[in-house]
Amino acid sequence: MDIIVLKPGITAKELRHIVKRLESRGFKTSISKGTERTVIGVIGDTSKITEEEENAIEIMPGVEKVVRILKPFKLASRDFKSKDTIIEVGGRKIGGKKIHVIAGPCAVENRTSLLRIVAEVKNAGATFIRGGAFKPRTSPYSFQGLGEEGLKYLAEARERTGMPIVTELMDPRDTDIILKYADIIQIGARNMQNFRLLQQVGSYDKPVLLKRGLSATIKELLMAAEYIMARGNSKVILCERGIRTFETATRNTLDLSAVPVLKELSHLPVIVDPSHGVGKWSIVAPMAKAAVAAGADGLLIEVHANPEEALSDGEQSLKPDTFKTLMKELKAVAKAVRREI
Amino acid sequence: MDIIVLKPGITAKELRHIVKRLESRGFKTSISKGTERTVIGVIGDTSKITEEEENAIEIMPGVEKVVRILKPFKLASRDFKSKDTIIEVGGRKIGGKKIHVIAGPCAVENRTSLLRIVAEVKNAGATFIRGGAFKPRTSPYSFQGLGEEGLKYLAEARERTGMPIVTELMDPRDTDIILKYADIIQIGARNMQNFRLLQQVGSYDKPVLLKRGLSATIKELLMAAEYIMARGNSKVILCERGIRTFETATRNTLDLSAVPVLKELSHLPVIVDPSHGVGKWSIVAPMAKAAVAAGADGLLIEVHANPEEALSDGEQSLKPDTFKTLMKELKAVAKAVRREI
Amino acid sequence: MDIIVLKPGITAKELRHIVKRLESRGFKTSISKGTERTVIGVIGDTSKITEEEENAIEIMPGVEKVVRILKPFKLASRDFKSKDTIIEVGGRKIGGKKIHVIAGPCAVENRTSLLRIVAEVKNAGATFIRGGAFKPRTSPYSFQGLGEEGLKYLAEARERTGMPIVTELMDPRDTDIILKYADIIQIGARNMQNFRLLQQVGSYDKPVLLKRGLSATIKELLMAAEYIMARGNSKVILCERGIRTFETATRNTLDLSAVPVLKELSHLPVIVDPSHGVGKWSIVAPMAKAAVAAGADGLLIEVHANPEEALSDGEQSLKPDTFKTLMKELKAVAKAVRREI
Amino acid sequence: MDIIVLKPGITAKELRHIVKRLESRGFKTSISKGTERTVIGVIGDTSKITEEEENAIEIMPGVEKVVRILKPFKLASRDFKSKDTIIEVGGRKIGGKKIHVIAGPCAVENRTSLLRIVAEVKNAGATFIRGGAFKPRTSPYSFQGLGEEGLKYLAEARERTGMPIVTELMDPRDTDIILKYADIIQIGARNMQNFRLLQQVGSYDKPVLLKRGLSATIKELLMAAEYIMARGNSKVILCERGIRTFETATRNTLDLSAVPVLKELSHLPVIVDPSHGVGKWSIVAPMAKAAVAAGADGLLIEVHANPEEALSDGEQSLKPDTFKTLMKELKAVAKAVRREI
Repeated sequence: MDIIVLKPGITAKELRHIVKRLESRGFKTSISKGTERTVIGVIGDTSKITEEEENAIEIMPGVEKVVRILKPFKLASRDFKSKDTIIEVGGRKIGGKKIHVIAGPCAVENRTSLLRIVAEVKNAGATFIRGGAFKPRTSPYSFQGLGEEGLKYLAEARERTGMPIVTELMDPRDTDIILKYADIIQIGARNMQNFRLLQQVGSYDKPVLLKRGLSATIKELLMAAEYIMARGNSKVILCERGIRTFETATRNTLDLSAVPVLKELSHLPVIVDPSHGVGKWSIVAPMAKAAVAAGADGLLIEVHANPEEALSDGEQSLKPDTFKTLMKELKAVAKAVRREI
Repeated sequence: MDIIVLKPGITAKELRHIVKRLESRGFKTSISKGTERTVIGVIGDTSKITEEEENAIEIMPGVEKVVRILKPFKLASRDFKSKDTIIEVGGRKIGGKKIHVIAGPCAVENRTSLLRIVAEVKNAGATFIRGGAFKPRTSPYSFQGLGEEGLKYLAEARERTGMPIVTELMDPRDTDIILKYADIIQIGARNMQNFRLLQQVGSYDKPVLLKRGLSATIKELLMAAEYIMARGNSKVILCERGIRTFETATRNTLDLSAVPVLKELSHLPVIVDPSHGVGKWSIVAPMAKAAVAAGADGLLIEVHANPEEALSDGEQSLKPDTFKTLMKELKAVAKAVRREI
Repeated sequence: MDIIVLKPGITAKELRHIVKRLESRGFKTSISKGTERTVIGVIGDTSKITEEEENAIEIMPGVEKVVRILKPFKLASRDFKSKDTIIEVGGRKIGGKKIHVIAGPCAVENRTSLLRIVAEVKNAGATFIRGGAFKPRTSPYSFQGLGEEGLKYLAEARERTGMPIVTELMDPRDTDIILKYADIIQIGARNMQNFRLLQQVGSYDKPVLLKRGLSATIKELLMAAEYIMARGNSKVILCERGIRTFETATRNTLDLSAVPVLKELSHLPVIVDPSHGVGKWSIVAPMAKAAVAAGADGLLIEVHANPEEALSDGEQSLKPDTFKTLMKELKAVAKAVRREI
Repeated sequence: MDIIVLKPGITAKELRHIVKRLESRGFKTSISKGTERTVIGVIGDTSKITEEEENAIEIMPGVEKVVRILKPFKLASRDFKSKDTIIEVGGRKIGGKKIHVIAGPCAVENRTSLLRIVAEVKNAGATFIRGGAFKPRTSPYSFQGLGEEGLKYLAEARERTGMPIVTELMDPRDTDIILKYADIIQIGARNMQNFRLLQQVGSYDKPVLLKRGLSATIKELLMAAEYIMARGNSKVILCERGIRTFETATRNTLDLSAVPVLKELSHLPVIVDPSHGVGKWSIVAPMAKAAVAAGADGLLIEVHANPEEALSDGEQSLKPDTFKTLMKELKAVAKAVRREI
């Protein structure tokens, strides 16, 4: 159901024109006259009304505004599926009692250092490997990733440790190669509204880790999930990773309230990336603990053996020792909120 | 020390003019020629240079920009005082191992309900009473507070429970009356840059709880603390309470990363107000837990016996029962991060 | 009229409880059942419902959300008064065909320089003097204004030129002195939600120039105007002066679209302050022209004889010559949009 | 040149380590000791230092922060090329005295309506056709564009009117087909940081209209232009189209100050899209005039014969008659700022 608020001076002809349009689309209408405004209740499955139609109705003569009652996303909503979605990857369940920590370097830089870091994070308690082979970089002069070579090293690290791989897909032309190696396909923040890419990953049977865009609302994040789900892939993991605000003390503002809000609106698992969220390693640990306390189902954390020499994101990477200490603290916090790591 | 970056084509005369100005202010200069730019190092205590002088230098012919090396706040900074400040109020220490929970209604509405709520929050473990007698309201048609009558009820609640009072000062003309009743004077978010009010509370020996403005950067919050401290009052408690962003799912975006960032930059205690931060009661509890995990020294939480009937902020108030449950969970989280409540 | 959207599983008892509450407040109700949701139409003058009541209803069991149909401001709205308000000050009409330029230094610094600048801006075509005697400064170590001495110089400048004075009131305790000298009282951006100050200027018969807060929405600016008007003073001039966004290339982001939006929603005159809006003198001129093209009724422009020596805001002040050139260009743009300067 | 600010307590060993690292990268260093801080001046072409290296240096022991003196973009900067770039397309020069108006529907919907609108906008004075064949839509259930069929209709419209075509490329896999029909390739706001797409259009000899992302800073817009230019294509037209802020009265906040700021920083032409910038047709006209007054080199305006029936963005489209009136007013404003339309 939608509500159409009418202007005070609407004519009978204008009103008829609006009602006719709605009826021609298969809706019933119910008119309520108030003392200051009259409104039309639009009866039927108004979730079929696209934003365009809504906008078009809004500019019809006599209309003041259209008020949407139903949410614009459906498959991703808690209304549609009340039970938490649990996504299984390589025997690990994301979205249940156990909180998963996905750790590794920002970008895969070389075989030796990757294998070393992965061994260390596994030892500390991480359950998934993260690492980028294709990297989105704001400068054309920055390191752009190793490509397939990087994916091969990730596969070798998986073989040695049994930990599944999370890696980013940036370009639809890389799909085949990413599908060959990844256990979870990451859609980065800058591609959250790359709708063609969303449609494409929606057509595979492979879990998708969908990062919130820098300026995306929670509703838009759920609409992006809807894009993937509408194509048949319901294995979507939502990821809060910081939004852009006026504050410059941190790289982004990590919106931890998105975790409980998403949990109310949706049945999908929600994880948090404190590394990108704050962009400064000394702030990552407190925010990781806060994310667990806020109810996150997982964490995405950048770890690098030698952050000073990292080819990307060194300033926000933890050293293996710091990560190990953090994992111990995270276990305590998880227990305090009746979860486990 | 400050750095003045010069334009590529600066003339010798322009350079002399700039150097002369700096020397007339008592600074020494050191010129470094790079391959693409020349810079002047300004040597001396450049924290004396006000923003105005800096701006004035920036528009001198031949200057590209001025880069500030020292922070614009001093007394509030960790550089100035490396040890954590602990503020004692009525035998309670804010800023130490113990995390304090300041609880109560948004506004004092009547004697009976106030006394009842205060008894309940004390019972659950709160250590301070919060309650507004003068209320800042966005609508002129809203309830504006009980004034001194409200303060009297707060004093009675204090007498009965031994809990000190935190209440807001909105208008310099109310200072005497607030000083008479409050144990901690709250400066609200909308007054964080009411500089005359800051100067005034700076001249009393009474702790001040300073809330971050809706669009204030962390640096500006510390500058506001500096205003108070520069007048002699060093008992300032900083409070994160949400900033304004594009997200509308929550009333504000609670910036929990401000907690560890403030802890790095300043020695002052930092508390968090999740009630105003998110504006929706069901989200308050997870964010309160997250605040404790992030390292907050205290919490400010709105509790109302009957939120549906509250004259203000009912939508973000917890019921006494929910608050009691939350306190138990908070204790567990505090213990997990080696603090206590 | 307001609309209350109900949750899918609401019980008959919950529904009765809501209807009863509304009826006890004097409203009639009209229930419309849709296929997916049921809504209650609240009939009567719902502008009497405060935000608090609305919030309280929103948390009643069975309620999904409350949709406001009427605007929360009334006296300031175009619905209430369809004709443009014209405010007369010293024989000058603000809000009519003529666009007024209010020019002068940020702060009054000394008698000689003030008189010189005022003579120059008058000569170039300005019709009002601006100048601060009490200055809000982010640093406690910055120049805070000359106080009454500054107001006396402004009065002398008015006597010499016949131009009325616009000056800022920061503290309710300065009201008498400001009333004695000012022709238009300015409420600064940082005080836009200093509700006690708004109420106070609302009780005088003196025009108020109300600046939009750094993080205030257009609706909140109109609510602040409503505060003043609700006390009886309808001579409010709205002023767009830049909002805080993530962009750092300019001091603030000047939201020129606020001009036509405010003109649609309200009958009050709207002026623009490009100096504070962008904070960099070379950008002030193009934005001043853009403001006129967008429909502004006036401009507030900082002019300083020697910006390099200004005690405040030198970086955004125009020199008298640049101002003179700008005034000529503004005349051409005003003519192009059928206004005059 | 870059400046490295050192921490007060840095050891001699830490300092040597930093200097050695810089020297190993081919830079010279110059150390200046101030009274409160010591800084290292890094001498050489520090624009070669990537953001990663900068970040890596920032976390070396003893470093407080790294201050960048040179801008991170080069080819796009006014430092690199001081003269305005003029881009010629089909005999029309963008970036010169003449302001170009690119007009047409948001999406191409069918042949008849496209040909009709194009004829009308040409008649009113537009010089380029805009129209989308592939549409980025926030809802998976919305109209996604006609694809190549739409491009064919655009080509027919070009043949009839002689007006070149501006159309969007969303997916690298559509490149061949877009290259076949477009005269200017549009990169939409959501793809401003789709770096692979930028690299791809950088390798063709075809002008690119690059829209600013919703949360992109001006610096990031120029970095995106740099991506294209670094691949050899210097024909980049920058486009301001509104940024995301907390204000909800307009769809986005049109940042017109970006026009003069971009003109200072870069030699590239700058156009403005008021339709997407404000999202409401009644606000489009004043903002189009303001954009011209602010110095824009062109406008992108949505026009639809029957906005109520538009399949996308009807609420922000002008009707042909309104567009015609606007064009007359724009001519007057252009003349007032010594340009022409």
